[in-house]
Amino acid sequence: MAIEVFWGSGGGPAWRVLLTLAIKGVPYESHLLSFAKREHKSLEILAMTVRGKLPVLRDGSYTLYESLAILTYLDRKHPTPPIFGTTPEDAGTIMRMIMEHECYGAPAFSAVTRPILFGKIEEQRDQVTAALPLFRDELKRIEEELENRTWFVGDTVSAADIFVFPMIKMIERSLAKPGAETFAHDVLPLRDSFPKIAAWVARIEALPGYEATYPPHWREG
Amino acid sequence: MAIEVFWGSGGGPAWRVLLTLAIKGVPYESHLLSFAKREHKSLEILAMTVRGKLPVLRDGSYTLYESLAILTYLDRKHPTPPIFGTTPEDAGTIMRMIMEHECYGAPAFSAVTRPILFGKIEEQRDQVTAALPLFRDELKRIEEELENRTWFVGDTVSAADIFVFPMIKMIERSLAKPGAETFAHDVLPLRDSFPKIAAWVARIEALPGYEATYPPHWREG
Repeated sequence: MAIEVFWGSGGGPAWRVLLTLAIKGVPYESHLLSFAKREHKSLEILAMTVRGKLPVLRDGSYTLYESLAILTYLDRKHPTPPIFGTTPEDAGTIMRMIMEHECYGAPAFSAVTRPILFGKIEEQRDQVTAALPLFRDELKRIEEELENRTWFVGDTVSAADIFVFPMIKMIERSLAKPGAETFAHDVLPLRDSFPKIAAWVARIEALPGYEATYPPHWREG
Repeated sequence: MAIEVFWGSGGGPAWRVLLTLAIKGVPYESHLLSFAKREHKSLEILAMTVRGKLPVLRDGSYTLYESLAILTYLDRKHPTPPIFGTTPEDAGTIMRMIMEHECYGAPAFSAVTRPILFGKIEEQRDQVTAALPLFRDELKRIEEELENRTWFVGDTVSAADIFVFPMIKMIERSLAKPGAETFAHDVLPLRDSFPKIAAWVARIEALPGYEATYPPHWREG
């Protein structure tokens, strides 16, 4: 029985899972659910995750949610190529970057991207403006992590890259929305403001299987 | 050269690291820093962690912060006994519980414990009262996870137990503070309200080396 993934278009955590499956070349059965139709709160999903959050993975009788948990499971089940490092040092540093993203990066980025994506630019103009310095600081940290590096840790793409990547795409997408240019964010185009991040994004986009992971509804505009 | 741990008394993340070292029987050099004296913002610490947060681990020339990252490193470097599971399924479930604690449990618990521990019972009485139902829901989930189980996942203590344990001790400690009894929390004594959690706490407290991990300033009252 194939691995099944229940996911929603545009969700960062789901994107991580699809990227991992692509990188490992593991086939899977895709169940793309509609947030708008609240399909993620169906009885079938709630039976697998009490919290009703996507993505959810099902592998035979085993079910799992939380993207970091799913990546961990997939890496143990399909170890090639490894995405959590091959040395204790790399494994530790990869997890350090993942948790820094969760605890510091993601909140700082979301404070800017969410109001824009949810069409609240005018209502929350002051909060977004106030959040921009930290937003830029966290981007600068990522740019620095890529100094003289192809990937964040080690010589290959790892779970650290996989964790951060969807957020960078979300940042690009949100700042390209009408009205976002009224903030002096100085982030786009990424290749001018953060050239190392832009080159790293291009490397991930060039990975075999990447296209199938791209959020379907993003193609529509 | 021994592993060095830079930590502060009473910090949950530091407690996880000390518990892991105890469980694995790995000797270490302890550097207990004073938050009050802001020793965690010293130049030596900031050179190892730009965010100035404890704990920090140093192993020769390798340094690392973020407790989950440190546990990952220690488990790779000293694999016996394993704390991240021996099967893909257990590894996934352990990480699921860790991330659920980080994303749901810890915020729900802290909304009650922090105002009490910081002496803000009166100023924040309404917020604490409003936070109590979710606080109890999350405790009930943990009680259910321990149904017919000795440890959260598998047959031995794992990183899931290690992650949640300090928070349970923090809950007990905060609700025993003068004034906390004015909330109808219905949590203490734990052995009456959440007997499975209480028995599990006792099992962790009985682990060899546990005593050395107990927050020194908690002994003073």
